[in-house]
Order: sequence, then structure tokens, then C-alpha cells
Amino acid sequence: MNSSFVLYDINKAALEKFISIQSKSLSQKPIHLAKSPVEVAEKASTVITMLPDSPFVQEVYLGKDGLINGLDNSSFFIDSSTIDQSVSKDVANQIINKGARQIDAPVSGGVVGAEAATLTFMVGAASEDDFIKAKSYLSHMGKNIVHCGNLGSGQIAKICNNMLLAISMIGLSETMNLGIKLGLEPKLLSEILNSSSGQCWSSEKYNPCPGVMSNVPSSRNYEGGFGNKLMAKDLRLAINAANLTQATVILASVTQQIYNFLSKSPDYESKDFSSIYKWLDKNGK
Amino acid sequence: MNSSFVLYDINKAALEKFISIQSKSLSQKPIHLAKSPVEVAEKASTVITMLPDSPFVQEVYLGKDGLINGLDNSSFFIDSSTIDQSVSKDVANQIINKGARQIDAPVSGGVVGAEAATLTFMVGAASEDDFIKAKSYLSHMGKNIVHCGNLGSGQIAKICNNMLLAISMIGLSETMNLGIKLGLEPKLLSEILNSSSGQCWSSEKYNPCPGVMSNVPSSRNYEGGFGNKLMAKDLRLAINAANLTQATVILASVTQQIYNFLSKSPDYESKDFSSIYKWLDKNGK
Amino acid sequence: MNSSFVLYDINKAALEKFISIQSKSLSQKPIHLAKSPVEVAEKASTVITMLPDSPFVQEVYLGKDGLINGLDNSSFFIDSSTIDQSVSKDVANQIINKGARQIDAPVSGGVVGAEAATLTFMVGAASEDDFIKAKSYLSHMGKNIVHCGNLGSGQIAKICNNMLLAISMIGLSETMNLGIKLGLEPKLLSEILNSSSGQCWSSEKYNPCPGVMSNVPSSRNYEGGFGNKLMAKDLRLAINAANLTQATVILASVTQQIYNFLSKSPDYESKDFSSIYKWLDKNGK
Amino acid sequence: MNSSFVLYDINKAALEKFISIQSKSLSQKPIHLAKSPVEVAEKASTVITMLPDSPFVQEVYLGKDGLINGLDNSSFFIDSSTIDQSVSKDVANQIINKGARQIDAPVSGGVVGAEAATLTFMVGAASEDDFIKAKSYLSHMGKNIVHCGNLGSGQIAKICNNMLLAISMIGLSETMNLGIKLGLEPKLLSEILNSSSGQCWSSEKYNPCPGVMSNVPSSRNYEGGFGNKLMAKDLRLAINAANLTQATVILASVTQQIYNFLSKSPDYESKDFSSIYKWLDKNGK
Repeated sequence: MNSSFVLYDINKAALEKFISIQSKSLSQKPIHLAKSPVEVAEKASTVITMLPDSPFVQEVYLGKDGLINGLDNSSFFIDSSTIDQSVSKDVANQIINKGARQIDAPVSGGVVGAEAATLTFMVGAASEDDFIKAKSYLSHMGKNIVHCGNLGSGQIAKICNNMLLAISMIGLSETMNLGIKLGLEPKLLSEILNSSSGQCWSSEKYNPCPGVMSNVPSSRNYEGGFGNKLMAKDLRLAINAANLTQATVILASVTQQIYNFLSKSPDYESKDFSSIYKWLDKNGK
Repeated sequence: MNSSFVLYDINKAALEKFISIQSKSLSQKPIHLAKSPVEVAEKASTVITMLPDSPFVQEVYLGKDGLINGLDNSSFFIDSSTIDQSVSKDVANQIINKGARQIDAPVSGGVVGAEAATLTFMVGAASEDDFIKAKSYLSHMGKNIVHCGNLGSGQIAKICNNMLLAISMIGLSETMNLGIKLGLEPKLLSEILNSSSGQCWSSEKYNPCPGVMSNVPSSRNYEGGFGNKLMAKDLRLAINAANLTQATVILASVTQQIYNFLSKSPDYESKDFSSIYKWLDKNGK
Repeated sequence: MNSSFVLYDINKAALEKFISIQSKSLSQKPIHLAKSPVEVAEKASTVITMLPDSPFVQEVYLGKDGLINGLDNSSFFIDSSTIDQSVSKDVANQIINKGARQIDAPVSGGVVGAEAATLTFMVGAASEDDFIKAKSYLSHMGKNIVHCGNLGSGQIAKICNNMLLAISMIGLSETMNLGIKLGLEPKLLSEILNSSSGQCWSSEKYNPCPGVMSNVPSSRNYEGGFGNKLMAKDLRLAINAANLTQATVILASVTQQIYNFLSKSPDYESKDFSSIYKWLDKNGK
Repeated sequence: MNSSFVLYDINKAALEKFISIQSKSLSQKPIHLAKSPVEVAEKASTVITMLPDSPFVQEVYLGKDGLINGLDNSSFFIDSSTIDQSVSKDVANQIINKGARQIDAPVSGGVVGAEAATLTFMVGAASEDDFIKAKSYLSHMGKNIVHCGNLGSGQIAKICNNMLLAISMIGLSETMNLGIKLGLEPKLLSEILNSSSGQCWSSEKYNPCPGVMSNVPSSRNYEGGFGNKLMAKDLRLAINAANLTQATVILASVTQQIYNFLSKSPDYESKDFSSIYKWLDKNGK
């Protein structure tokens, strides 16, 4: 296939890094640097976007220089941002009304998953065809591409998963901290939980207590990983969605407040979300 | 081995059930019905107790007709009650000071695990010898016998596990309820969580949303399983232990209040602990 | 002053009630029934609106038949709705950009306060002149007209007050329920709190425990008063505002979840917000 | 009346301070320094105790050198400690069974109240006579002496009041912090709350936001006042009592965790309980 890249990013360093990596790749492809989102839509038939929050997605897709002003009937948009599910649906519907196609495909798996191409993409698509087309691109980056339902459902799946992850992480941190204070050996407690009904992804793959596992953020002073700010943002999206549907989310709402607190706390704002363990253990120090 | 049973229970029906099952067993052993705990200690060298709360353990072990008044140097006591870890340690130390041996061995796995002899026993023992001796008996009932540390540590491991289980169950219930209200298909949401970082024992083995799994309490109107009252009790023990050590347990403390509420609610008091899903979904109906 | 009324309401019964009351008044004024908001703006120089939530305010002010299309330079709008403070500011700024004036003036005091003309109005106004003009109208309905600051600040003051009120009400209900379960006489407990540092508006004026006070909702099975649905809405606005500013609101967030739950619970949705006492005491029955 | 003092304290500095103050008093009375609690009971007919937690009360009253071993039929004990209400009742009943009288009389009002003799005493007494006798002594130190009911009810009233106080204080701190972040002027917000349904003792007498009031801990970097450790202890007693009666206390339980956290946090452990405002505003700094 005779393909090329059209790039746009307000962060020039990210563009340079991409160009540098491509230049060392076996299958070098032509790269064009666009001057605006609208130029990306004009020059590329399949466009992948990843932006940090809802207003940016609205601006990049629907703004004056937005993708919407450069699309045609063959345009296909994959938005991998994690944003408000109602905004995601609304933007996609406006794009589709102009004759193009769009799906939402938020991602989980972190930097490690991205580098190893083992990310999970949760896809909301208006049709099975859209999903299949998206999968053909996303499978180069991830190994688990799930069709969650109609437009916006990728966002819903993502915030549901992260909401449960955050609750489990705080629950696990409280549990490890309590057990250790009561005299249990950390690794043994971890093994007991993992072989019992307390098991969860965090207890098995991402223990927040230093010394229990190597190669996780808790073993390197909570550097790297998935930051408290990102978790706070995802929880805000979850609470917004809960308010919209009037679903009761008691633990999630306390959990949001805790991650909001950490995300603004000088010593914790740039740490991995498992640093909640340290916060509990050291009483905020 | 030339062994026999010495039984004592204030619940006569439980005694009769035991006798009836034994009478159909291939290896029938003599049964003696004791008139008090003290007589049990006098007639049996290894004694297994399972009682519903701390004061009962104190009465049965240390009371006027308690085991302490019938023990000798060869007595070995296995207490499988789930009780306050400080009471557990205190009772065991008094027994040990009289020259006998005692361990704590609370159990998880439920009625299903008991019938299939696949229970997990979490053992607190003062020595490796005590643990090995206990294991020789407990392995007839369970397949996972873990030495958690010194006296009381079985209790600590048990309440830690159940505290995390309860938090995960409420977190999962909030998540399933939110996702479904936002339009996700329940089984699909369950699969997404199980293949992502939201995975936990409850999501994989004990989904609280009716229709997702068969053979779990949620598929039979939350009958059977592990009741809200028992979970409320274990959480009370966890909070007591946290207060003793001043460990911070924010989600656990809200979780305790929710299970306390359910355990006193006419429609929920006799239901499985996964009925929190229904409570959230039906707003208490 | 030679004045008249221009009325518009999609609820015809409300219009008829107004007309009926006016017809019995000493100072009968001409009434004109408008066919749309735009006609109200065309025929009246001072317009007072009170609507149940943010989207309605946007529609009535900015919609196709909205007030914005009938205003002129002498138009003065008083919006007494309790809505999202950011929407309130945005709508007012659009009106002001068209050359008219607008203030926000949410109200507290309930049906009793409305009938006795003792309401409190919390006013956000762009200038002292606007506030003074608004006060000349609002003082016919309330006795406490407070200038809270710039546009939107009336909304902020209102949700802050109601957020604290809701937290105090749940706190008081938990306290009364605990004290009574521990054996204290309800009226005596109420007196002790009121003469000590536990005193709050609810303990003094609105005790949620039946039998402590007469003439409050708790003395008439929680009928009348300020409903759980309205409180749930105000708390949602408060949480939205907290998310916007990333202020940490732990108790408020749990409080929102509790009132959200009650506002959807069949037995509680139409009750006064002090019914949280009964919910706690009867475990949801 | 020909009276004298019999003193006992393990803190020698406290004894010296008392002696020094007495020596400057107009009505000097003889002072005897006892060597143990038992000697106090032997030499004094009315004994007032104030101790920091339940185990100390058990030791001082019921221990080997305890008051119980020195009492006679005329002994009258006033325990002003704030302790577990069940321990308080139990100790008093043992003393009464030996033929003496005892009441519980925990106190509120702080150092300021003590120096001005304006303390509030909440009295649990087995009879009206006991209360009247206690009042004759306590009215020298306080101006509000309330008979709360039978033995232990002074403790119950005290922890109920402080539980509500703590909830109100966090609620007020969240409210002030939110309102200020949204742009309201602190003093104006305080005035609005105080004239509306958000009013509480803390908003009127003890505002936690620096600059709103003078002569409160928030105006002097939260020095003095009622410390986070004492509040954490009272909340622990409240939660214990709630667990005993299975009363649901959701906000109180989160509140306990927050004060427990602060009481162990290096920067907050020695601060007044209104420092929760700073903790929220500065995200733990």
C-alpha cells in the first residue's frame, strides 16, 4: 500500500520524536507536516486523534481550523482521546452529518503497552463496518480491540473500567496498609489476597506497596505509570456520567475526591496513581 | 488411627445432622456427646471450634464451663471463628499459658467450599510445628492452608481479604450499574472489565448483576452465598482493627456503613452480599 | 405607577391561580397572557423568570422564541432559577451583549417564605445599580436581599449554602439517631446540641426526628418542605462547580450520592430532605 | 466549710501549677499530696477525675492501687473523662456495687471555658440526688450543667455533640473553600451562611477560614483550641458506640477517617480541628 503520514501537533517535540523514529524504521514512509487540523483532514483519508480533554476535541474537530472543514465522504476519523461520552457522541454525530465516518476508541495499557503494541482499544462505532475498518488500523498498536457498542460506548467502557480500577487501588492500598500495620508480611499478604476473593488486577499486576513487586511504579518511588492527574480526570468523567444518569456511585465519588486531592497535592501530583498507598501510610507526607 | 468424635453444640439440630451423616459414612467412628465445653477438652486431644463472634469465643474458651478448665499439656485447639484479632490473641495466650497449644484458623470459601472440601484456612500459629499439626487436620476440609504468621495473624489475613472483597464488590456494582445505565450490554461490560485493569475476583467469579453469570447468588435473587450480616460483621472487625492501629481506611469505612445498613434493612438482611447491586440499581427497593 | 403584568407559563394551572389571586386583590392590575417568552420581552420592561434547571433557562432566554429576541435597551431580567453558575453567567453575558441588563437572584425560604414575603434572595449583579434596581422588585417578595458579587455569584452563594445545609442535615440525623439508639431522650438531646457546639440551623429550626418539634416536615411524615429531588439537584450543581475549580469536597460528594439515592427511591422521592433521618433509622423502609 | 484538697497526678508539673495557683488564692485550703489513687479515695469524700482514655479510667478506678480499694459508703466520684460510654457505665456500676456513688460528667468548652468557669458539663447520673450533688461542685467550673440521663449518658451526649461538630466543621470548610475558589469574598460568604440555613456553631463562632474572624484558631495558624488528636479520639468513641448499636453513621465514619488522618499527619497533628480548612485548601501542605 502506497501510504504516507500527515502530522499535526502543537507540541513540536512530539513531532520531532516521531520523525526521528520513522527515519530509523525499515519501512520509511513520506511525512507531511500539516499547518492545522483542517489541512490534516484535507490530506489524509484516515485520521487518528488523541487529545487530553473534551474542549480540545471540540476545538480540533469542530473549530474554525477544525477537521470538519477539511473532510470529504471518504474521511474516517478515529478519536482515541478519553473524554466526556456525551461530547464524544455529539462531535461524532456532527462529523457523520457532514458525510464522513467517525468512531471513538479510547485506549488503556499505558506507555508500556504502547511500546509493546499491546494496548487495549475500546471502540464505540455506529456500524460493524466502521469497527472492522478501525480495527485494521488499531491492531498495529494494540492486541485487544473491543467493539463496545454504538458511538460513545468506547468512552463509557473506558471510564467504567478506570472507575473500578481506582476504587480497587484505594481498597487494596487500605488493605495492604492495615494488614502490614497489624503485623503481616507484605509479600505474604499479597499472596493471600491473590489466592483468595480479595484478588484484583492491582493486587496481581500492580501492587502499590513498595517491595512487593519489581517493575511497577511502587518499586521506583511511584515514577512513571498512570498519573494521579489522569486518574482524577477519568473519575471526573465518570462522575459526570453518573450525574447524567442519576446512577448512585458512593465509593466512586469518594474515590474521585481522593484522586482530585492527590492531583493537586505538590508531593503527589506527578506520581503514579498507586501512590495512594504512600499517602495513606505516611499520612500525606 | 483409633479415633472418635466428641461433640458439643447448643444447636441440637446441628448435632443430629452430624450424627446422621456419620452414620452413613464408610468409616464410622464412635461419637460422644459432651455436656459442656469443659467436657470436650477433657475427652478430646484436638479440639476445633467455630463460633459467631468474639464474646462467644471468650465464653467457650475461658468461661466457667470453658475449655480452659478441661485442658492438659497435650491439648491442641484450632479456633476457626472469625473474631476480633486482639481477642483471638488474648484467648490463645491464656490457653497457652495453661500448658496447651492453640492456633487461629478462620476460613473462607462458603458452604460450597465446605461441601467440596476446598475451603481456604488462614492460620495464625506460634510455631511452625503448630501450623503443621493444624494443617494435618484442616487439609481434610480445605485445599489451601496458609501460615499467615504468629497468633492472631489468621484473623488479620481474613479480615483484610474480606475488607478488600467488600470494597471491590461495591465498586463493581457501582460500575456495572453505571455502565448499563449508560447503555452498555451487561455481559459485554463484564468481559471488558475481566480483560482489563478493572478485573477482580468478583467480576470474574461472582458478578452481582443478574443475568451475567449462572450459579451465583445474583442469578437466584441473591439467595445463599455470603450474607450481608456476615460481611457487616467482618467489616466491623476490620474497622476495629484499623482504629487500634490508627490506619486510615476511608473506602472501607464507607463500605462498612453500607453493609451495616443492608444488614439491618428488612429486604436485604438475609441476602447475599452481592445484593448491593440490586440496592443501588433499585434505590433500596 | 401605571403598571401591568405580562405572564407566560407552560403550566396553565399556574397562570389560572395567579389570575384568580389577582382578581381578589385590592390593587388589581391589567394582565396580559403572552404566547411565548419573546412576547414577554417585547411587552414588559422588567422580567422575572424562575425555571427548574439549566437547559430550560438556556431555552427560555436564548432559544428561537426566547427573551433575547424581544429585548431592547431598557429590558431588565431577573433570573431566580437555581442553575449551574457557569450557565447562569453565560446566559446573562449574552443578554447584556445585546444591550439589556440581567442579574441572577436564586431564592431560599420555601413555600412558607414565599407566602409570608420573607424569602432570601442571593443576587449576582454586574453593578451596584443593577442590584439596587433588582432589590426594588425583590423586596416585595423577600426580606433579605443580599448582593453576593458579580454575575453568577448569587448562584454560587445559593449552592454553597444548600451544600452545607445538606451536610448538616445528614450529620444531625446520624447524631440524633445514634444518641437515641444509645438511650438519650430526643428532646433533651436536641436541647443539648442547641446549647453546645453541635448547634446548627437544622437542629434549631428543622429537627428531622419526629416528635422533637411541631410545624416541621418531620412532624407530618416529611410532607411539604424542601424535597429530596430539589436537594439532589442543588448538590449536583455544587459538585459540578467543585469539579470545575478542583476544590475537594469529600463530605459533600457523599452527601450528593445519598440525596441522589433518596431522590430516586420510591418511598422517599417526594419527601422533605429531612426524611434522611427516617431512612437511616428505618434502614430504607 | 472546712475543706481541703487531696491531689494525685503522674504529671508532677500539673501538681506544682495547682499548688502555685492555690498559694496566691484568697481562700487558701490545705493541700495533701497522695501517693496513689487509693490514698485519694481514703482521704477525700468527693473525688473528681479527668483522664485521657478508657484504659486509664479502668486502671485508676479498678486497678490494684485504684480508687475502688479506698472508698467507703460516703464516697462520691465524678469522672469528667471523655471515654467509651460502655466502659464508663461498667466502671461506675462496679464502684456503686461497692457502696459508693459515681457519675460521668464529660466537659466541653476548652481551655478558655475552664479559665472563665463557663464550661458545659454533660452529666450521666443514676439519680436526681446524685446529679444535684454533682452540680454543687461542677457549678464552680461551668455554667451549664445538664442532666442527660442515667449512668453513661453524659458520655453519649458528649460524643454525639462532638460528632456533629466535626461533621459541621468539615462541611463548613468544604463550603468556604468552594465558595472562595468560585470567587466569593470570605467574610461575605460567612455572613450569607450565618443568615441562612447553612448557619452552624462553627460558622458563627469558629470560622476555619483565616481572616474571617479574629480570636479563633484559624487567625493564629490553628494554634490552641481543640486538637485534631482529641477530635479523632472522640470520633473513634462515636464510631465504637455506633457499631455497638448498629446505627448507620455514613458521614461520621468518613469524618472519623479524615480526623484520624490529620491526627497522624506531621504538619497537622498538633493543630486545632479547624485546620481541616487549610488541609483542603492547600491539598495537605
